[in-house]
Amino acid sequence: MTDRPIAERREAYRHFTLLATRWMDNDVYGHVNNVVYYSWFDTAVNGMLIAERLAGPAASGPIGLVVGTQCQYFAPVSFPAPVEIGLRVHRVGASSVTYHLGVFTAQRELSHASGVFTHVYVDPDSRRPVPVPARHRETLARYASAQ
Amino acid sequence: MTDRPIAERREAYRHFTLLATRWMDNDVYGHVNNVVYYSWFDTAVNGMLIAERLAGPAASGPIGLVVGTQCQYFAPVSFPAPVEIGLRVHRVGASSVTYHLGVFTAQRELSHASGVFTHVYVDPDSRRPVPVPARHRETLARYASAQ
Amino acid sequence: MTDRPIAERREAYRHFTLLATRWMDNDVYGHVNNVVYYSWFDTAVNGMLIAERLAGPAASGPIGLVVGTQCQYFAPVSFPAPVEIGLRVHRVGASSVTYHLGVFTAQRELSHASGVFTHVYVDPDSRRPVPVPARHRETLARYASAQ
Amino acid sequence: MTDRPIAERREAYRHFTLLATRWMDNDVYGHVNNVVYYSWFDTAVNGMLIAERLAGPAASGPIGLVVGTQCQYFAPVSFPAPVEIGLRVHRVGASSVTYHLGVFTAQRELSHASGVFTHVYVDPDSRRPVPVPARHRETLARYASAQ
Repeated sequence: MTDRPIAERREAYRHFTLLATRWMDNDVYGHVNNVVYYSWFDTAVNGMLIAERLAGPAASGPIGLVVGTQCQYFAPVSFPAPVEIGLRVHRVGASSVTYHLGVFTAQRELSHASGVFTHVYVDPDSRRPVPVPARHRETLARYASAQ
Repeated sequence: MTDRPIAERREAYRHFTLLATRWMDNDVYGHVNNVVYYSWFDTAVNGMLIAERLAGPAASGPIGLVVGTQCQYFAPVSFPAPVEIGLRVHRVGASSVTYHLGVFTAQRELSHASGVFTHVYVDPDSRRPVPVPARHRETLARYASAQ
Repeated sequence: MTDRPIAERREAYRHFTLLATRWMDNDVYGHVNNVVYYSWFDTAVNGMLIAERLAGPAASGPIGLVVGTQCQYFAPVSFPAPVEIGLRVHRVGASSVTYHLGVFTAQRELSHASGVFTHVYVDPDSRRPVPVPARHRETLARYASAQ
Repeated sequence: MTDRPIAERREAYRHFTLLATRWMDNDVYGHVNNVVYYSWFDTAVNGMLIAERLAGPAASGPIGLVVGTQCQYFAPVSFPAPVEIGLRVHRVGASSVTYHLGVFTAQRELSHASGVFTHVYVDPDSRRPVPVPARHRETLARYASAQ
């Protein structure tokens, strides 16, 4: 892919979500299982959207359906270390928003993993794509990556 | 059962673990699914044991196998609210330790749920029960409930 | 508690749900984590209710909220072994239904674990308890334990 | 990316794993959460490797660490529908193996989602990359995609 994620520093992200790991996140090798990282990405994106009242009970209008995600793993994470999930808006398209995410711990300056997460905005009833609303664009611009 | 858990205040617990909820913890009713509470109990107990060096890479000797758990649910919890898991040692037996746990949020003075979690200590190789080691008893006494 | 679950034979259950284990269900000891058993109980009960059209999109009327669950673990289960979850209705009260569940594999005649799962029926809007509807009682009677 | 996954037919895959969905897999929208798909991919790959005795208790030698995963979602899946996970080996490199995966149900001829999953083989002690062993190459060739 053209924008394969690489390990980055915290400065590359605009927003951070602190999350606890859970004992059952560790697999037989004693590291957090690869699947769990996506629950962190999901939580970081939706948590930001809910805090901005762009999703959740306080929001109306289109909802974001996840149409693509990916993750590259650079260094393992293990319970009980907490993680900080860095987030930046990579691209706002006609009806989609793509986020870049990074997994950080106190053990390492560079990210342990880098993720990509794409929402398509759909009408909650028809589930057909709709334009990203202006209020979303304005808010998400504050989370945009510098480059 | 004779000791059916009830909603309690924070003062009833000796130790607290702050945990983030995750977006996928919410079920179709918009509340954290009943299963997830057990991942918090598991995390609170193992996190305390690892912090006390009674479990995990820094520990040797017997390991705790989970032989019984239970939970009573009093009031729902929803992402994105974080939870605090209260813990107290209810009983240290010959080869078992029973913990009581409570789920708290900022929304409610009483616990949202109360749990019971019992470890049996076993030899890591034979998996046969062994006495709770003296060092565990001494440490766990600091987490014992008042009554 | 008065009705502490014990290991039982398949004959003690009235209905079985075959479920695959998942690789991430295994914990650092190579056994399915204690939390995962509750996702099986949840699935067995809700799957039966949906198949009977007592829950899910095809159903209307009260919904079941989980108010209490418990599990006793007798013998470990490991991925990739599939599990069969035995279910029987233990008791139908005024506004609650209690299920007994058992975890079986091809490796063992007796259950690996026994669970208890209690639903309280509530109005979907007010979330206040309501009587168990007659249609539920009639259907659930077919799943009742012999004793 | 150059090989963005697309919806495909079952014929595009060489091996299938039948997996049950779980009630808690459904999110607030009533669809299986995006994270859960990765637990299926993980299970399909590891289940095949264990069945082939290339991983698990019956295996020795290098272990596979997950270094990259991705998923494109085309159509939702909901509990209680079971899923079949199609698998094919896309590429065996010097020390890595990349799998393509597809999520199928009885409701749809084309895949609901397509995934990519890459293992790097490492020494279990040093965790440094090692060549993919000949026995793995031979076995994995049987799962290779036609094209």
